[in-house]
Amino acid sequence: MNVNNIHYQTIWMQHSTVHMIEQNLLPYKFSIFQSKTHKDTCHAIKTMIVRGAGAIGAAAGYAMAQAAAEAPTNNYRPYLNRARKDIENTRPTAHDLFHAVNRVYNAALESPTKAAEKAEELANANINACKQIGCFGETLIKDNSRIATHCNAGWLAFVDYGSALAPIYVANENKKKVFVYADETRPRSQGSKLTAWELHNQNIEHAIIPDNATAWLMKQGKIDLMIVGADRIATNGDVANKIGTLEKAIAAKYFNIPFYVAAPLSTFDKLTNSGDHINIEERSEIEVHYSTGPDESGAMHTIRISNPFSKAINPAFDVTPANLISGIITEKGIIEPSKKQIEAILINL
Amino acid sequence: MNVNNIHYQTIWMQHSTVHMIEQNLLPYKFSIFQSKTHKDTCHAIKTMIVRGAGAIGAAAGYAMAQAAAEAPTNNYRPYLNRARKDIENTRPTAHDLFHAVNRVYNAALESPTKAAEKAEELANANINACKQIGCFGETLIKDNSRIATHCNAGWLAFVDYGSALAPIYVANENKKKVFVYADETRPRSQGSKLTAWELHNQNIEHAIIPDNATAWLMKQGKIDLMIVGADRIATNGDVANKIGTLEKAIAAKYFNIPFYVAAPLSTFDKLTNSGDHINIEERSEIEVHYSTGPDESGAMHTIRISNPFSKAINPAFDVTPANLISGIITEKGIIEPSKKQIEAILINL
Repeated sequence: MNVNNIHYQTIWMQHSTVHMIEQNLLPYKFSIFQSKTHKDTCHAIKTMIVRGAGAIGAAAGYAMAQAAAEAPTNNYRPYLNRARKDIENTRPTAHDLFHAVNRVYNAALESPTKAAEKAEELANANINACKQIGCFGETLIKDNSRIATHCNAGWLAFVDYGSALAPIYVANENKKKVFVYADETRPRSQGSKLTAWELHNQNIEHAIIPDNATAWLMKQGKIDLMIVGADRIATNGDVANKIGTLEKAIAAKYFNIPFYVAAPLSTFDKLTNSGDHINIEERSEIEVHYSTGPDESGAMHTIRISNPFSKAINPAFDVTPANLISGIITEKGIIEPSKKQIEAILINL
Repeated sequence: MNVNNIHYQTIWMQHSTVHMIEQNLLPYKFSIFQSKTHKDTCHAIKTMIVRGAGAIGAAAGYAMAQAAAEAPTNNYRPYLNRARKDIENTRPTAHDLFHAVNRVYNAALESPTKAAEKAEELANANINACKQIGCFGETLIKDNSRIATHCNAGWLAFVDYGSALAPIYVANENKKKVFVYADETRPRSQGSKLTAWELHNQNIEHAIIPDNATAWLMKQGKIDLMIVGADRIATNGDVANKIGTLEKAIAAKYFNIPFYVAAPLSTFDKLTNSGDHINIEERSEIEVHYSTGPDESGAMHTIRISNPFSKAINPAFDVTPANLISGIITEKGIIEPSKKQIEAILINL
């Protein structure tokens, strides 16, 4: 998608250097972080320089390819194995990460060149999958729709286009009028920082709302449709996604508002048959207690935003049960969140 | 309740000067704001130096008494009428405000002294009502309960004791072990700033959680009970309260978790027979876009926390329908949120 009218991908690799949009600096500063080693790329994943299911997957694939390029020939496989573990430990909830690491690892067993090719292939597959998600999802969007989304499942969360936002981008390209409510998405505020930044750059009408306001807007009939992304989808249709997704899904069900999940097939986890078995990452309470941003002069500050002597609990994700989900928008079409339809669509994967 | 082991009320009047804990500076700085005129007190209500249903009610009563003391004898009634309008316009959703202004206005028609006495009487009645709410509500709390609350309906929101937190304070006095989850309550973060500050000062075990996490904790069986306050209660049991209350109530219903509202009878609005008729205040989008707090050195900064070119929508309250509420804890006992029980309890008011 575009930044100041120039086309960018969220992440790309050139000569074993991975380039990533530095997402911790957005929306205040647009810059590219360059990572020359797989350890630097792990660091980028861990510190959320790159974040979002698809972008993490691409980063993990590139990191695995970097490891293959770095690995000494006399210690090739042990080096790869150790790198693989390091990469997998960066973000344990993200299924795309494991998917990509596994593919690139297998290619790396042939040669570093094969690993780089595979990583590139996966990144391109991610772009194409998102485009297709956009086309299928767009059919759900009527002209003059008001659509809510949670967190950032836009192009910043993938290599390009995004998942939850892709249908909105395609609807916009097709001249449908849309209005997007971007949930702020505390504690990291990916909605008010990243989704709003994306929508602004694409000239799509939108407003940021506090996470607390979603159900109230639904009750007033101001939301026609909600689309969110996913970090991992079990084969029974349960969806792990950013904390708060469950609460929105319950509210959408209560008010009979269609609630869709958009995700490429790489997000489905064949080995997990229920959301109950998904490992949910707990992140540092620091994220709840502090906020970083520019003052009026543009100087950045990190400030305390909570009672100094209190603890906080910060689960990064939650699991939304399949029965709260209207459908899952994939690159192969929109399916029901059922074991039967999920197994059918995954059969050739 | 206590601040550094000294007993304080949230608000009190001495010789026509209203003293208020400056709640915008909490939890970082404890100081008392002094207001010498009804206009200053209006300003304090508007800018949330004083906030919360009961404390606003007391402040409005004192402001009306100040206006009576200020009013010139040759223009007494017109001055009172204008002051009344100014006070009523500060926070249109707060029913306690209208209740208190009306009572003190009628007393002021007799004399400024009667007005001051009435304002004092209302403030004391508020304290006693909260104590009673605490005693009735405490019966709902088993030993080792984990209780969630939203926003701040503690003693800072009243003259003393609080509504939603009063049962917790009484349970704590009675040596019951409780753990409190304080919803952060964006955008003004009254939960992470004020409720956490109160609980810390009372030595009650607690954790701040992002608003997005409440349903997820419920799903995991970590919340036994939720108690919130109210800004206005219609005679059919619909409750206007801080934005996000509706979303929590829907989640509590979904997971079969008791969801109680605690409020003195002054919060019931006899003239409003349904939540549909409650006027919901929209506050400035500035509250969503900016955060204020201290950096590591203690210097205060106001920083931008959202995409600079995006708009935000900021409804301050929402309305939770009666059928999502397990009961209303009042100073006269716990009642069902039904027309019949509400009319019965209000009959002598």
